[in-house]
Amino acid sequence: MFFSTPRLQYPVRVDRPNPVFARALQQAIGGVEGEIRVMLQYLFQSWGARGPMKYRDMLLNTGTEEIGHVEMLSTAVALNLEGAPLSFQEEMSADPMAGAVLNGMNLRHILSTGLAATPENCNGVPFNASHVYASGNLAADMYANVAAEATGRALAVRLYGMTDDPGMKDMLSFLIARDTMHQQQWLAVIEELGGTAALPIPNSFPQAQEKGEFAYAFFVHSADGIAPEGRWTTGTSLDGKGQFEAMISKPLGEVPQLAPARPDGGAQAEQTTMQPPAGVPGGTIS
Amino acid sequence: MFFSTPRLQYPVRVDRPNPVFARALQQAIGGVEGEIRVMLQYLFQSWGARGPMKYRDMLLNTGTEEIGHVEMLSTAVALNLEGAPLSFQEEMSADPMAGAVLNGMNLRHILSTGLAATPENCNGVPFNASHVYASGNLAADMYANVAAEATGRALAVRLYGMTDDPGMKDMLSFLIARDTMHQQQWLAVIEELGGTAALPIPNSFPQAQEKGEFAYAFFVHSADGIAPEGRWTTGTSLDGKGQFEAMISKPLGEVPQLAPARPDGGAQAEQTTMQPPAGVPGGTIS
Amino acid sequence: MFFSTPRLQYPVRVDRPNPVFARALQQAIGGVEGEIRVMLQYLFQSWGARGPMKYRDMLLNTGTEEIGHVEMLSTAVALNLEGAPLSFQEEMSADPMAGAVLNGMNLRHILSTGLAATPENCNGVPFNASHVYASGNLAADMYANVAAEATGRALAVRLYGMTDDPGMKDMLSFLIARDTMHQQQWLAVIEELGGTAALPIPNSFPQAQEKGEFAYAFFVHSADGIAPEGRWTTGTSLDGKGQFEAMISKPLGEVPQLAPARPDGGAQAEQTTMQPPAGVPGGTIS
Amino acid sequence: MFFSTPRLQYPVRVDRPNPVFARALQQAIGGVEGEIRVMLQYLFQSWGARGPMKYRDMLLNTGTEEIGHVEMLSTAVALNLEGAPLSFQEEMSADPMAGAVLNGMNLRHILSTGLAATPENCNGVPFNASHVYASGNLAADMYANVAAEATGRALAVRLYGMTDDPGMKDMLSFLIARDTMHQQQWLAVIEELGGTAALPIPNSFPQAQEKGEFAYAFFVHSADGIAPEGRWTTGTSLDGKGQFEAMISKPLGEVPQLAPARPDGGAQAEQTTMQPPAGVPGGTIS
Amino acid sequence: MFFSTPRLQYPVRVDRPNPVFARALQQAIGGVEGEIRVMLQYLFQSWGARGPMKYRDMLLNTGTEEIGHVEMLSTAVALNLEGAPLSFQEEMSADPMAGAVLNGMNLRHILSTGLAATPENCNGVPFNASHVYASGNLAADMYANVAAEATGRALAVRLYGMTDDPGMKDMLSFLIARDTMHQQQWLAVIEELGGTAALPIPNSFPQAQEKGEFAYAFFVHSADGIAPEGRWTTGTSLDGKGQFEAMISKPLGEVPQLAPARPDGGAQAEQTTMQPPAGVPGGTIS
Amino acid sequence: MFFSTPRLQYPVRVDRPNPVFARALQQAIGGVEGEIRVMLQYLFQSWGARGPMKYRDMLLNTGTEEIGHVEMLSTAVALNLEGAPLSFQEEMSADPMAGAVLNGMNLRHILSTGLAATPENCNGVPFNASHVYASGNLAADMYANVAAEATGRALAVRLYGMTDDPGMKDMLSFLIARDTMHQQQWLAVIEELGGTAALPIPNSFPQAQEKGEFAYAFFVHSADGIAPEGRWTTGTSLDGKGQFEAMISKPLGEVPQLAPARPDGGAQAEQTTMQPPAGVPGGTIS
Repeated sequence: MFFSTPRLQYPVRVDRPNPVFARALQQAIGGVEGEIRVMLQYLFQSWGARGPMKYRDMLLNTGTEEIGHVEMLSTAVALNLEGAPLSFQEEMSADPMAGAVLNGMNLRHILSTGLAATPENCNGVPFNASHVYASGNLAADMYANVAAEATGRALAVRLYGMTDDPGMKDMLSFLIARDTMHQQQWLAVIEELGGTAALPIPNSFPQAQEKGEFAYAFFVHSADGIAPEGRWTTGTSLDGKGQFEAMISKPLGEVPQLAPARPDGGAQAEQTTMQPPAGVPGGTIS
Repeated sequence: MFFSTPRLQYPVRVDRPNPVFARALQQAIGGVEGEIRVMLQYLFQSWGARGPMKYRDMLLNTGTEEIGHVEMLSTAVALNLEGAPLSFQEEMSADPMAGAVLNGMNLRHILSTGLAATPENCNGVPFNASHVYASGNLAADMYANVAAEATGRALAVRLYGMTDDPGMKDMLSFLIARDTMHQQQWLAVIEELGGTAALPIPNSFPQAQEKGEFAYAFFVHSADGIAPEGRWTTGTSLDGKGQFEAMISKPLGEVPQLAPARPDGGAQAEQTTMQPPAGVPGGTIS
Repeated sequence: MFFSTPRLQYPVRVDRPNPVFARALQQAIGGVEGEIRVMLQYLFQSWGARGPMKYRDMLLNTGTEEIGHVEMLSTAVALNLEGAPLSFQEEMSADPMAGAVLNGMNLRHILSTGLAATPENCNGVPFNASHVYASGNLAADMYANVAAEATGRALAVRLYGMTDDPGMKDMLSFLIARDTMHQQQWLAVIEELGGTAALPIPNSFPQAQEKGEFAYAFFVHSADGIAPEGRWTTGTSLDGKGQFEAMISKPLGEVPQLAPARPDGGAQAEQTTMQPPAGVPGGTIS
Repeated sequence: MFFSTPRLQYPVRVDRPNPVFARALQQAIGGVEGEIRVMLQYLFQSWGARGPMKYRDMLLNTGTEEIGHVEMLSTAVALNLEGAPLSFQEEMSADPMAGAVLNGMNLRHILSTGLAATPENCNGVPFNASHVYASGNLAADMYANVAAEATGRALAVRLYGMTDDPGMKDMLSFLIARDTMHQQQWLAVIEELGGTAALPIPNSFPQAQEKGEFAYAFFVHSADGIAPEGRWTTGTSLDGKGQFEAMISKPLGEVPQLAPARPDGGAQAEQTTMQPPAGVPGGTIS
Repeated sequence: MFFSTPRLQYPVRVDRPNPVFARALQQAIGGVEGEIRVMLQYLFQSWGARGPMKYRDMLLNTGTEEIGHVEMLSTAVALNLEGAPLSFQEEMSADPMAGAVLNGMNLRHILSTGLAATPENCNGVPFNASHVYASGNLAADMYANVAAEATGRALAVRLYGMTDDPGMKDMLSFLIARDTMHQQQWLAVIEELGGTAALPIPNSFPQAQEKGEFAYAFFVHSADGIAPEGRWTTGTSLDGKGQFEAMISKPLGEVPQLAPARPDGGAQAEQTTMQPPAGVPGGTIS
Repeated sequence: MFFSTPRLQYPVRVDRPNPVFARALQQAIGGVEGEIRVMLQYLFQSWGARGPMKYRDMLLNTGTEEIGHVEMLSTAVALNLEGAPLSFQEEMSADPMAGAVLNGMNLRHILSTGLAATPENCNGVPFNASHVYASGNLAADMYANVAAEATGRALAVRLYGMTDDPGMKDMLSFLIARDTMHQQQWLAVIEELGGTAALPIPNSFPQAQEKGEFAYAFFVHSADGIAPEGRWTTGTSLDGKGQFEAMISKPLGEVPQLAPARPDGGAQAEQTTMQPPAGVPGGTIS
């Protein structure tokens, strides 16, 4: 259950409103790297948590924090829209470089919301909840959370660089700090779960049942058969259970043979009989 | 540029076709944890790679491998659909428990493809390319890739458990092994980039510009002010740059004051004048 | 800014878990009539509110309440999934009517979440934030909110009828009561704004500028020219500003004449010259 | 069954084509407040109507009218695109402020349609039929229709303000008038159904089965416990069946306890055993 | 402008209602092969038509016909839902094989519409208007229309096979006939435009400007260099302008070299310097 | 199974980077007329092919080629973004017409990818795999492929006209040539299948079962009853099996009569009884 206060988690101040920056900020609200995503992701991970309750509690705390981040950013969008032009004629009278601002705006900020934020990204694409990753596997979810906070911090850093408004820079420096903490926080859970020793994820599947010979081999798919070398082709694997190697990938399977189409299935008549594959018998790949 | 052979990377065999399992397999094709996603993700990361070329090469290799995984799974779907009923009357004649198989099928496997796979998930929701994470930040992308392979391996393990078809189990044990390697592979890049020392992501933003006091603090949003304790509230942070602490979160900002609505902006007349906030003066949170 | 407690707003109890009912409940989480929608709708309306502050506060209160409704329903889904079969073989051993439960389940409840809720509707379609209506016009938003609570209550009533689980019926009777209140609440705002006297929405546009002769006329588009009669064809209009009438609709405009396609614009050559319309000169509609 | 004439319902004239206004107009075609939505909404409500036939007929009439509105707006988009630049070089030769028009255009108007409308909103997001509300409950649908026409009229008014083209203003003043009528029309049905006496929606569920004590109570979720006062906290409810009151919202439920994860379900090993919740025993909210 | 009559274009009769067939029929309403798609496609092609007016008129006629097809199918869905169970308990009392019908239904037919059609496909995925192809090129559009009617007729044929209800078979035999005509109709336009002589589409681009040596060559991407032979590798091309040949595809371009990442762009530090590509110098493909 | 080389299929060179053209190019990557679509379409058609194997092989070849087209275009986008401004201040210092470039850019090219392509169209709408047509009917698929290559070539021609960059024009002239070939290629398959003699699609349904009288009749839906004349109203049909004619379309069906709403189904009380239709008895259409 949730409570709220009309005060913001951190001050949001815009010194020089910029309606085009309002469009950019939308990426941090409704983009795949944005705050609606992490808000719902942490809450759904919490609500579906099975196992130790402390993770449920922690996720609930941070999910609750993130609601307030959406609130801060929505406020920042609205404040960047103060004074935005509502028409072509208004804009042209103020500025002979007609259309510059309206061109760069999300027109829905005028037409659909009357100068307020939308739950969309910077291109006006609505947030889609399929981006809420809550797999029921704690370690997998923690990596998904690190990825969300890493792309989210990259986004916040880019927004910080895009503007020179002091108020916006101040707000973003707060959000960037929180992203730092949240990266740490999810990695801390991974450390508690054993770090790389907890790999591979999920760790509840007996590895004897996987095709072990392919579990630590880098498959080379370059047509010239040359592997890009790195840590992933040499040394002990990160879970300590195997040795990395480079392996030229070859087809281990045959050409699939589907049954002919059924005569009553809506296909063309030609598809209802089978013919031998063309050009396949000599299909040796070396 | 790309080449192909009609042979499969690994044999795909179905001993007892099961049209409902065909529906389940679709999650591994077009689901957010599935193979179209990683195929496009690794390819787009490769095509947009800036910096050391070896990562571009590696991503291209593995992206190329993944195309073949989509191929294997699509073949597995088609083979599981061999012999599926095309009508109610057909099914009922074979089985008095009428409709059981048609109930559980993705009807598009009959109606739209004539017994073949679709680029959709197990609910028939088409794959959406917004799930392709390619941030331009190598470390962020590697964590996104670990998350994809971790949720992907959890999915493959669950599919493995769902079936007792020996052919399907064999194919899945291969894919599970590849997910193991791919988890390792992306973590190996992170190790090359310095591991936790490379945090926070991105590491090219001067941390002096973030609000340092909030960068290693776990914010408590429980209404009762009790923190869920764990590695994230105590000890040195994972990047070695701070000390974890629990901090009761309080509103640091004020109630936002947006300007009244513009009379010519389509709002109600009541919105064009401002009133003091109700119930806020005493808005003390303690 | 937001706070939470791990306790639920109202008890959620499932006496006889039913994984198919878990699928049905998803409509109340991620469906267009569901709780994620109203949660985000009220919050975005609050965050973008211009004009009297008390509406911002009220919306924030109820938006905060709705987060807890998503929590309750997500918990209800998880509890309905306790004991669900994870495989065909498991189900068949328990019940010779093989596949009945797996057929009716959202397979992502097994494959993607490990027996927990998703932010999707009952067909597995992810929630899409384009359904968040926050127009910047208070009266328009209130009608959108009434519509959301009316379709939401119809949904809750249908779920109530679908189950005979006492725990689920108890939870739903609470949610139904809240929907009653929320219908009342948004209509109370409309009453404060003047009720029908506030029409048409928006009331800040001078009605003299609209084509008044068409503002209270029911247009008859039946090919036989017979109007379906009702309150909308007779009497004073609901805002007291006009008289309803039925008017046979006729084309008042001409056939549109677009310029020929530009030769360098990718069209067929035939499209780059113009011909008189065929069969139009005599295009009299009577 | 439907018929058509190539003539338009009302004249569409563009005096000074403006390709950026063409982008804005798209919101009225494919936006959530637009005409494709109401066209399909009224038609699907008609086609699924159960009960008095006159509502089916009325919905069919107005749904048929709306098809012609999409036609008018699509024509308006095409006419606003007459003379639009097709290339950077063309634009720059005409105007040294290079790029202004192409920047502000929906590039699909050039690339995908050859200067014609698309079924998209002003951001190029395709119309999605999930916005078609047809609940099977007449009163709920009428409120949804009022909401659609209210946000639609707000949009039309904003488009009217955005342009100073006399032809466009004339067309919009017609559409604004029709939105006025359609708001009236749906409210007239509600009046026929009994007005507020028909509440709550649906009125076919026995209210004795809802938790009556919560049906007219405004829940206060402010952390400071102060209610935003208004008509919704005092007086008789709008359906005349209760008394409004403000009620401090407290958690009535307990912390949910999900079963541990199943060992064969793809979760981490840590999730397969249960631990008592941290920080909950003292979880008193006051 | 449009008109309607409440009578249907062709009788719709359901002898034995089948709620699972109602789900299947949805594919013909809101599926990509369905009628909402062609309705909007023909109407948008008409409304944006440039060039000879008779095509605009023809498209308007057939687009208008298709609205009535959506109406027929929506009616068929509603009639197939007559008598459908609304609850688990109701179904079980009628039939001990509990849940069979509810398992196979689109639950939104109960929960969201009260036994009526939705603008969705058979998986409950809402129709998305991005499937409306109206390219501004008449020949391209005609091929898109043939494709729509061909996949649409395949769908109708499969639905015909799926049911043995005489009423449904009768309705489908009408729709199948119309699909026959519509295939013919669009091909007739292509014949008028010159048939294969009008190729390639668009025919308004000077072919001298394309890389002619690649315009009639089948590229072989098989890793074994063996071409699948057919009409496409031999003989005169269908537009009579070239000779088909098989050509082994080789990379004609080099490895792309993107600039290093900008230090202020949010990438990792490692990405801000450039390294020579690994394993590429010897990248000869033969 | 697939292989790759880091070299491109054809050289990609950008002489004068243009970030707005980068946005336009995205339509060829992730638009409905773009390369991700055909890549997946041909691959899924190949993987699900039933009947003669040579079509499976051919589709696999061309699908493999298309992956390299996505690669070329993604590279072209990245090269057009070299030197793009990352901030308002940077742009303004270089050019007093502030904001022109940022206005016209896809801001995700800065914020989400660090100057690289996305799998989106020119409006930033992510590619959606529902556009992958693979019907299981070879002839239907070939027409879908022709349509894809025809709209794709129209798009490429428009991009060619939009730019005057020699490198981009060179790359596009290659892609345009390939689109020419691919149009030819799919039509060549249709020729092999019998050309128009293979109509109607699917040809495996006995035409005696369709309502023959409607199979070659153009239905006139103009309210004035005048048919747009053309090849489709006169002469032998293209499959040689019928005679075209124009037929005034009349309603052959009656007004549908759905049962009243069930009292326990969430509808309004008024809907639970039936009334005779209003205005219908005289519903004669002539």
